[in-house]
Amino acid sequence: MTGPKILLSDEEMPTQWYNIAADLPSPLPPPLNPLTAEPVSPDDLLPIFPLNLIEQEVSAERWIDIPEPVLEKLLIWRPTPLYRAFRLEKFLDTPAHIYVKYEGASPAGSHKPNTAVAQAYYNKISGIARLTTETGAGQWGSALAFACNQFGLECKVYMVRVSFNQKPYRKMMMETWGASCVASPSPDTSAGRGFLEQDPEHAGSLGIAISEAVEDAVTTEGTKYSLGSVLNHVLLHQTIVGLEAQRQMQKAGEYPDVVIGCVGGGSNFAGISFPFIRDKIHGKELRILAVEPASCPTMTKGPYVYDFGDTACTTPLLPMYSLGHGFMPAPIHAGGLRYHGVAPLVSRVLWDGLIEAKAFNQLDTFKAGITFARTEGFIPAPETNHAIACAIEEANKAREEGKQRVILVNFSGHGLVDLASYDAYLSGKLVEASLADDEVLRLVSDLKRVPA
Amino acid sequence: MTGPKILLSDEEMPTQWYNIAADLPSPLPPPLNPLTAEPVSPDDLLPIFPLNLIEQEVSAERWIDIPEPVLEKLLIWRPTPLYRAFRLEKFLDTPAHIYVKYEGASPAGSHKPNTAVAQAYYNKISGIARLTTETGAGQWGSALAFACNQFGLECKVYMVRVSFNQKPYRKMMMETWGASCVASPSPDTSAGRGFLEQDPEHAGSLGIAISEAVEDAVTTEGTKYSLGSVLNHVLLHQTIVGLEAQRQMQKAGEYPDVVIGCVGGGSNFAGISFPFIRDKIHGKELRILAVEPASCPTMTKGPYVYDFGDTACTTPLLPMYSLGHGFMPAPIHAGGLRYHGVAPLVSRVLWDGLIEAKAFNQLDTFKAGITFARTEGFIPAPETNHAIACAIEEANKAREEGKQRVILVNFSGHGLVDLASYDAYLSGKLVEASLADDEVLRLVSDLKRVPA
Repeated sequence: MTGPKILLSDEEMPTQWYNIAADLPSPLPPPLNPLTAEPVSPDDLLPIFPLNLIEQEVSAERWIDIPEPVLEKLLIWRPTPLYRAFRLEKFLDTPAHIYVKYEGASPAGSHKPNTAVAQAYYNKISGIARLTTETGAGQWGSALAFACNQFGLECKVYMVRVSFNQKPYRKMMMETWGASCVASPSPDTSAGRGFLEQDPEHAGSLGIAISEAVEDAVTTEGTKYSLGSVLNHVLLHQTIVGLEAQRQMQKAGEYPDVVIGCVGGGSNFAGISFPFIRDKIHGKELRILAVEPASCPTMTKGPYVYDFGDTACTTPLLPMYSLGHGFMPAPIHAGGLRYHGVAPLVSRVLWDGLIEAKAFNQLDTFKAGITFARTEGFIPAPETNHAIACAIEEANKAREEGKQRVILVNFSGHGLVDLASYDAYLSGKLVEASLADDEVLRLVSDLKRVPA
Repeated sequence: MTGPKILLSDEEMPTQWYNIAADLPSPLPPPLNPLTAEPVSPDDLLPIFPLNLIEQEVSAERWIDIPEPVLEKLLIWRPTPLYRAFRLEKFLDTPAHIYVKYEGASPAGSHKPNTAVAQAYYNKISGIARLTTETGAGQWGSALAFACNQFGLECKVYMVRVSFNQKPYRKMMMETWGASCVASPSPDTSAGRGFLEQDPEHAGSLGIAISEAVEDAVTTEGTKYSLGSVLNHVLLHQTIVGLEAQRQMQKAGEYPDVVIGCVGGGSNFAGISFPFIRDKIHGKELRILAVEPASCPTMTKGPYVYDFGDTACTTPLLPMYSLGHGFMPAPIHAGGLRYHGVAPLVSRVLWDGLIEAKAFNQLDTFKAGITFARTEGFIPAPETNHAIACAIEEANKAREEGKQRVILVNFSGHGLVDLASYDAYLSGKLVEASLADDEVLRLVSDLKRVPA
């Protein structure tokens, strides 16, 4: 008998990343220097990123070879399984076929190591000895800690203080892999010291943590900065997810009618969807759904503007759907989805009408996560629950409409280190949060719209 | 290029369990009724276990078919990968080849679901609607919660209060799968109420939790009791681990010189080793190492006696190596290895000289776990660290002796829900515990030796 897993052999793992920039219907607007409003040149990024990653960031090549040493690391846990969710289908009594791409198999438990190992490698061969980064909920910080350890780099993670205190397991994971993790704001940077002077118990924010990590990188010998989402090269590295899924769907003898991923900065969504968007550009009919929290409705309520990538206004202006860099999302448990903007490449395919955006309420996503755990067994991360809620909605619609439908959903990570959020849900302690339209208007009123 | 994983297809997953009772050089002594000192009859077990599991408990059949519905559940995460630990080998600079059987792939993150799904199934087809069990650190309780959920059974877990308070994630995992988990002693049983009257904040013990779970099972309609280790049928269900590993080693073109597993009650060790012990009985030359904590040296310091399986003296007398049912191991972080005895089948193969026992200090096991995490990437459970410490010792010996050696080690579970123990180790807070020989003598002086 055979089970629900559709596996690829090591030899079937993709050896190139797919760069969607080569296929976009209209070119991606460049990032702008906030002072001059001129496009940022690759040279401007050299203080924080190595040249090889900057070249990837601006590359127009459709296919980019994955270096052998990166393939070797990816093969630790890749190719990841694709599951047919038979038990969930049966529970929903749906004619839909639900396929789940399982990214929880990596040592850190999410898709994040896909780009972490690539970034660590490119920095290593550029002679970099140490990477800095920021992390909110900790998925990214732990992935980079793992990757730096694999390539013998030092790693320093600035973790937003409120998460540092609430999610001690993520910090422990980073330290187990030899990284250093400090609560941000920290006394280790001048930016951090400034905030600590205002308030010694400052709760911190992703924006502050970015400022600290960047300052550390530009002021420390042999050190660069690393980002876990948003940028083009980060999304590029994640496309191995969708490329594998395409081969696995082919093995299953099916092609998805709907592809679903959750969106924070956009890297997990880009990973599963970009190879399928390429098919769509070339004439395939399918729907591609990007799912966000209703409390952080960047794509469903935000305008397409030039905005800073961080709260502290230290980055170039990026062309993206945004709720404004000053927006502080409600403290929902899907910490990885609490970002005011969305990656320029994801924003562009939304602008071009290649994908649809959907927002789900926190309580509905946990209900979906519990349904998944109690049918399929694996406990999803709170972020992943957003994609699963959407998949269940699509499967229910298929039943109501009496239509067959093939659904592919990206399981971005497992929730074993996020169980406190399930506990809060099951004990009735989770509340909803939403964002009024006039509040959105206030947050984005100063921002320049991206020209059509 | 190919990576370090040696995979089996679904079709290559074993469809029978291996029953070592059929191959033992000398018959397993029977469990005894403590009052009459007469062998316990299968009928004596009917109030707590269903007949089909009791039949397996006493079966002499060498191969027992795995029922289709159980295979279907096992295929959710099985066959599990076998890894060649290239990066660990390189770090140790050893000529040894180290193979790691990775049981962290199950939804609960350990080998425990292998028997949990089988036990839930056999109870289900016997008309049982509800299972009770006890759990210490929580690995077993979460595995049974998952399995009961898969077969639509209710599940109630009595969790030792000190662990219930220290390890909230395990309880949350059980509840996410729909099980009920209470701190033991609890007000839900008369045994529990008795202990709570003595002390409302009673820390509990595995013995007390067993008493509660058994009382609940025998006094509640449609309810049976389930045990996660020690018993013959539990060990039987785990042999799929070693049977898979045999097929995977064959694919790798090697045969182990050494097979290593950690031992608490003995089920994970039996799982990896029993199929290889069969080879040894049939003439293969290999060493099989059972690893325990120095603070709970059951096999290395305990005598082979008839002892109770629980602290409260409610079970039959089992023929096993034991430190005495009154022994309370030091609160080491490998909670799954804190058992005063060891499964009768594992005890017998030790008595027969088919395996060797080794004890490791807690600090050495965490050092090994860190080495593994920082080379291979995956973070092992504290229990697993004992097996890894032994594998590293064997690999180091191979280097010192200049000998090739093929080492197979069972990775019983990942440590993502046990990261607090790594934090304690890395911050220097872990201490050693050991057991003096005269203390062992005192603990076992009343126990009857198993006749040779």
